[in-house]
Amino acid sequence: MNNDLKRLALHVLTDRTLSLGRDMLTVAAAALDGGATVIQLRDKTASTRLLIEEAVALRALTRERGALLIVNDRIDVALAVDADGAHVGQDDMPAALARQLLGPERILGVSAGNLEEAAEAVIAGADYLGVGPIYATASKADAGQPQGTVLLSQLASRHALPLIAIGGINIANTREVIQAGATGIAVISAVVSAPDITAATHDLRQIVLAELYGHERGS
Amino acid sequence: MNNDLKRLALHVLTDRTLSLGRDMLTVAAAALDGGATVIQLRDKTASTRLLIEEAVALRALTRERGALLIVNDRIDVALAVDADGAHVGQDDMPAALARQLLGPERILGVSAGNLEEAAEAVIAGADYLGVGPIYATASKADAGQPQGTVLLSQLASRHALPLIAIGGINIANTREVIQAGATGIAVISAVVSAPDITAATHDLRQIVLAELYGHERGS
Ligand code: NI
Repeated sequence: MNNDLKRLALHVLTDRTLSLGRDMLTVAAAALDGGATVIQLRDKTASTRLLIEEAVALRALTRERGALLIVNDRIDVALAVDADGAHVGQDDMPAALARQLLGPERILGVSAGNLEEAAEAVIAGADYLGVGPIYATASKADAGQPQGTVLLSQLASRHALPLIAIGGINIANTREVIQAGATGIAVISAVVSAPDITAATHDLRQIVLAELYGHERGS
Repeated sequence: MNNDLKRLALHVLTDRTLSLGRDMLTVAAAALDGGATVIQLRDKTASTRLLIEEAVALRALTRERGALLIVNDRIDVALAVDADGAHVGQDDMPAALARQLLGPERILGVSAGNLEEAAEAVIAGADYLGVGPIYATASKADAGQPQGTVLLSQLASRHALPLIAIGGINIANTREVIQAGATGIAVISAVVSAPDITAATHDLRQIVLAELYGHERGS
């Protein structure tokens, strides 16, 4: 079993507006209880000061639980709190610049919505691709047109790096994105809007890992 | 004449909404023609991608003109474009973290609205203080209560570093802020909203330099 791949299996993105009033740290802790392997801090409206406070708290929590912390967009925040990495989209810092600032050791994730963006991201030094949006989603207002699973299949045949499906991923379609070539999933509302965050995360994790590696014992 | 001090004499902050429809680069070029010594890129609503594009353009322009480029809030953008420094406010990254990321060579400016914030900024490694708001201003929605020139006088007697007055600074009150102890001024609307940006900048510069060093010959 590829341990690096497994560590990128289940990304939970924070979202203050979709969390049913529960605070970010509570949501993240519950998701980690359910087996999230990555917490991605994503907060496009917070001041930098608030982002730093959130990131410091999530850094302590993820370190304690042996999970990864990845910061969306903000390379400065990722560096300031010693996050494991950063994720940049097509409206964020160009990936090659992000790689320069992060250095060679930290994880760089890059969003790719088509083959060309994916190829550019690989050249720029991405460690994984966030591929999507796969399905229609209301969670990210800035997401593009849904791509279906075709893009995942095409990328899986072209690139060896981890492919993380994002955009409308939920319990009903996780199996098909992994079968199409994704090596992990990134979710927002499927976890942060769930009444039982831990259970929702656990169920998603089981599907991902069962498809990738066969069912985990005792879980 | 202290050359470092003179280089921090006249900061012009960019503002897309107050520039009467003129684009950022046009405004900055006109301000540099008038003798602005610092362009501070401040754009709280732009995506990181757009910020980088703006910063790259301003970096080329300021380098060509021998002026400084300082990036507001975004240490990642400052590093990515090799800006001369960054400026952080009380809602931005804590100054000590900003200093760590910027390293010892780049300029770090820190906003201070009272004596305590100023003392903390000095300890954290600020190279200059942005002191204010001195007067009431509509340019920065997040500015605090106007401090008048008293805070400048108090800080000038306590700290040796450059004090840049900000908040409602214009042609009518520049002399009094310099006399109160400011070693420079930072303006937004007094320059970017002026019909003749170059003339407005020139006039402000002449007052600052005349008060600090006596009138420049031939200007
Ligand atoms: Ni003159």
